[in-house]
Amino acid sequence: MVNYAERMQGVKPSDVREILKLTARPEIISFAGGLPAPELFPVDDIRVASDLVLKEAGPVALQYATTEGNPKLREQIAERLDKKNNIKTDKEHIFMTAGSQQGLDYCGKLFLDPGDVVLVESPSYLGAINAFQVYQPRFVEVPTDGDGMIMEELEKILATTENVKLIYVIPDFQNPSGRTWPLERRKKFMEIINKYEVYAIEDNPYGDLRYAGEYLPALKSLDTKELIIYMGTFSKVLAPGYRLGWLCCSEALMWQFNMIASAAVLQTATINMMVVSKYLELFDLDAHVEKIRACYKHRCELMLQSMDEYFPEEVKFTRPQGGLFTWAELPSYIDTKVMALQALEKQVAYVPGIGFFPNGGNHSCMRLNYSCMPDERIVEGIKRLGGVIKANLK
Amino acid sequence: MVNYAERMQGVKPSDVREILKLTARPEIISFAGGLPAPELFPVDDIRVASDLVLKEAGPVALQYATTEGNPKLREQIAERLDKKNNIKTDKEHIFMTAGSQQGLDYCGKLFLDPGDVVLVESPSYLGAINAFQVYQPRFVEVPTDGDGMIMEELEKILATTENVKLIYVIPDFQNPSGRTWPLERRKKFMEIINKYEVYAIEDNPYGDLRYAGEYLPALKSLDTKELIIYMGTFSKVLAPGYRLGWLCCSEALMWQFNMIASAAVLQTATINMMVVSKYLELFDLDAHVEKIRACYKHRCELMLQSMDEYFPEEVKFTRPQGGLFTWAELPSYIDTKVMALQALEKQVAYVPGIGFFPNGGNHSCMRLNYSCMPDERIVEGIKRLGGVIKANLK
Repeated sequence: MVNYAERMQGVKPSDVREILKLTARPEIISFAGGLPAPELFPVDDIRVASDLVLKEAGPVALQYATTEGNPKLREQIAERLDKKNNIKTDKEHIFMTAGSQQGLDYCGKLFLDPGDVVLVESPSYLGAINAFQVYQPRFVEVPTDGDGMIMEELEKILATTENVKLIYVIPDFQNPSGRTWPLERRKKFMEIINKYEVYAIEDNPYGDLRYAGEYLPALKSLDTKELIIYMGTFSKVLAPGYRLGWLCCSEALMWQFNMIASAAVLQTATINMMVVSKYLELFDLDAHVEKIRACYKHRCELMLQSMDEYFPEEVKFTRPQGGLFTWAELPSYIDTKVMALQALEKQVAYVPGIGFFPNGGNHSCMRLNYSCMPDERIVEGIKRLGGVIKANLK
Repeated sequence: MVNYAERMQGVKPSDVREILKLTARPEIISFAGGLPAPELFPVDDIRVASDLVLKEAGPVALQYATTEGNPKLREQIAERLDKKNNIKTDKEHIFMTAGSQQGLDYCGKLFLDPGDVVLVESPSYLGAINAFQVYQPRFVEVPTDGDGMIMEELEKILATTENVKLIYVIPDFQNPSGRTWPLERRKKFMEIINKYEVYAIEDNPYGDLRYAGEYLPALKSLDTKELIIYMGTFSKVLAPGYRLGWLCCSEALMWQFNMIASAAVLQTATINMMVVSKYLELFDLDAHVEKIRACYKHRCELMLQSMDEYFPEEVKFTRPQGGLFTWAELPSYIDTKVMALQALEKQVAYVPGIGFFPNGGNHSCMRLNYSCMPDERIVEGIKRLGGVIKANLK
């Protein structure tokens, strides 16, 4: 009797979800999630901001509000984008979403008919693949190397592929690969999309979390034709529990997102936007980000050192300049999905790489997260994982 | 160059949105929105709950959480559904959403392929029509009378229409008509959908806000085949600013909604769920609802009295037993969309009825909201509106 919409056929529970369920057990050393470290949340400052909002403007904070989001917060975000990312914009180009994930869903809804093509880095962020999948596109994976997307490959694909509606990229500290695009590639990317006039989503959740190397400009700051839909979020620099992200885009797209959001959800939670706005007004987010950065930098370095020590030399991995993840490539005869169960027996979890390739086929990679485990568990976990890998070597 | 998805063709800005923008001016007496009265929000109690959550469990409240929502809040909702609506359920059947609007979007996503049929009451809730529209269904309007949906008409339509995927209804104090289905119709409805085995959404945002007549059972409490997807929300009884609603449905649908929400938004805001859960634990929501009920009952009665006094006898209107709206039918030669501009000149706003009929064609109705205007503005507004109507009589 049950007769769901066709789009549901592509929507399947991922192996990752099953693994993440298992990793909820406290004895597991988990490199599987992508959680920020909860001990770093500025709880006391948020308490102050939250209480002030309810005290000063309770009835407004608890009422309905506009679909595009709180004007003051959007102004603060626009100023921050200018200051941190050299993106010249204003609140009329900032659309609030319930985390970046919702922005991905809105983009899929706006652009994708069944069979339309989405280009993604190979590998790409699992959550974006899932968000788009519902709209039944065809994914074309653009080959990458240690410096991210290979621009010659992108151009080749654009020259020969019809119905490319969207390109989805994470140029800074990519999830899952940890890779960062150098300046030349960024410029080349803009040249190419300007030529083909295709929209690109620049997802930048980790941009503020750089541990090494020099700051590189956001694609959006190089965007002269309003082709970049930039996504930001408070999830990694402040707290994910408020579900606050934003899209920075053209006014024409603002109008479209407004209609989509009106129909899908009406608006982002009024009080959450006001509390974060108040936090930004009262406290120094940059000083807080500095704390996070120092902690994650240390954990990142410790994980890389441990991998140097305990992983066999057959394993190649990224030395990320920032963000939350590193990415390891094992000998091609090792299936990291099978090996994940062996690792779980040793109480260690990671995410097998396969889910990050929308068209499948790559069985020997793994994503490792270092942001939310304390030092001794990072070392111990990598040591155990190294043992598991060694046992799988031929 | 811009080439949006086909589904965007059906998504148009509504006249209502334009009217609502105009009504934001403070001098306007607005019967147009559907806002709860902000002066009734339990701001102080919410402050206490909010602060306690951050104090006792800040890092948890600010972190990511599960897609289906906070287990404790879902338990509290299940208990409340049993106590208030005689719906026997548990937290495994409660899925949290960012307001009911998101539940409507999820249902559209889950069930509707382009061309599939959705049955709605005629008129029906504009927000639901908008939510489904994105999925390109064909709407079939089921005729109604003063007692809501006419069951003989429903049966006739089901017997002769293919691809009916969903029925969307508001049996209690419907938005926009203010009508309530009597018990016999509820039983008959369940008989019919059981026979045809078609899913129905029971949207019940106003159920607790009854001002007259006897309590009537929710369709969900009569549902033996798990065909009813019940929607509840805290927006009307507590505060819309948290964006918290829920779906109560079968475990099979919980699983589907989980996949849809994972892809669309990951989860509902952690802290919002924890604050409302804490509020329910510490304070008496029923006592608070009693206050709202008393206030809205009074405003409802005052509006109806004023309509008796100032509206010409050619106008027929609902005497609602609860909820936020009444609905007036004017002589068929009056176009309430045209008349809305005349009313705005007199600083009075309402929503023209046309938008509540997905297939259009009904030009002479209007929806009037009485929940968020003080007494003197209700009387003055209805008096002015009566004048405008009289000036339009032939």
